[in-house]
Amino acid sequence: MKKSLGPKTLLYPTPVWVVGTYNKDGKPNVMTIAWGGICCSKPPCVAISIRKATHSYGNIVERKAFTVNVPSEAYAKDADYFGLVSGKDVDKFSATGLTPIKSDLVDAPYLKEFPLVLECKVIHTFEIGLHTQFIGEILDVKADESVLGEKGLPDIEKVRPIIFSPERRVYHKVGEYLGDAFSIGKGIR
Amino acid sequence: MKKSLGPKTLLYPTPVWVVGTYNKDGKPNVMTIAWGGICCSKPPCVAISIRKATHSYGNIVERKAFTVNVPSEAYAKDADYFGLVSGKDVDKFSATGLTPIKSDLVDAPYLKEFPLVLECKVIHTFEIGLHTQFIGEILDVKADESVLGEKGLPDIEKVRPIIFSPERRVYHKVGEYLGDAFSIGKGIR
Repeated sequence: MKKSLGPKTLLYPTPVWVVGTYNKDGKPNVMTIAWGGICCSKPPCVAISIRKATHSYGNIVERKAFTVNVPSEAYAKDADYFGLVSGKDVDKFSATGLTPIKSDLVDAPYLKEFPLVLECKVIHTFEIGLHTQFIGEILDVKADESVLGEKGLPDIEKVRPIIFSPERRVYHKVGEYLGDAFSIGKGIR
Repeated sequence: MKKSLGPKTLLYPTPVWVVGTYNKDGKPNVMTIAWGGICCSKPPCVAISIRKATHSYGNIVERKAFTVNVPSEAYAKDADYFGLVSGKDVDKFSATGLTPIKSDLVDAPYLKEFPLVLECKVIHTFEIGLHTQFIGEILDVKADESVLGEKGLPDIEKVRPIIFSPERRVYHKVGEYLGDAFSIGKGIR
């Protein structure tokens, strides 16, 4: 028998991603989000949801571009900080010492220190409620050589992304390898 | 210096969720997805992306409802299997022995054996490309009592959801507690 917990944004796992944007006068900004996910394979797209009240919202509407930056565990405090304060009030880069780099393909900055980053061009803007959803076409994925593994792809055990539990408001690490996808279920017929 | 990997759906972490639906004649179906995420706080909504070619797509269009079911590690093989075969061809419930239960609030079934489930009503349908995105308003969250922890909320270490690495196509477990959200970054000013 399951217990009813009511209508809540209570779903595991959710990601911890840092969205990079430029504001009107070209100043870089970053904010941390957990509301998002890959939303299409062709074209490759990621959805991120952002409240209108944020500095980043205006930046994305203006520049039609953003980056998604995956913090490794080592940057958990920085990623948390990026979600605590507004770019309207503080310079998040001087506070953390992290480095914004101009993207090659889109009008947004990415974080040099984070191991995996996506350059995204906004192709749709969907109003849902408190949050607006921006659909970004992924024009390029960039990764530190140090996190690449088999087939030249990023290894999650090297990237060490952070897992967020909504409502409980805690972060977890990625754990052990569990199995190969599109494979371990083949025994069931 | 980062290495460019090209335009790919390469972002960590992504979830492993099982979507439950009814087809025209009331037969339950489930499919596994990794393209999705929470997309709004008010109303609480989750976005899931599904290809038109799937059985589930037609079911959601018809019934305007779905459930999101979070498999625990113990059901990794079943969740993988649900993504390998189509409900057009096989009865996924008799194959796995898992049990569909009629939702209380929406016209879709959830899985009895999975520890955390969401009942969702479709409030938007967005065409993106190969994938269509369904926005489901979360009308209720249900959880097994055995996975509840502090504040009566599900504890991710008890739910034990599965982490998927796109492109690399591997599953990982959730690891250790890393810190409290909206807290560990407070030291940075």
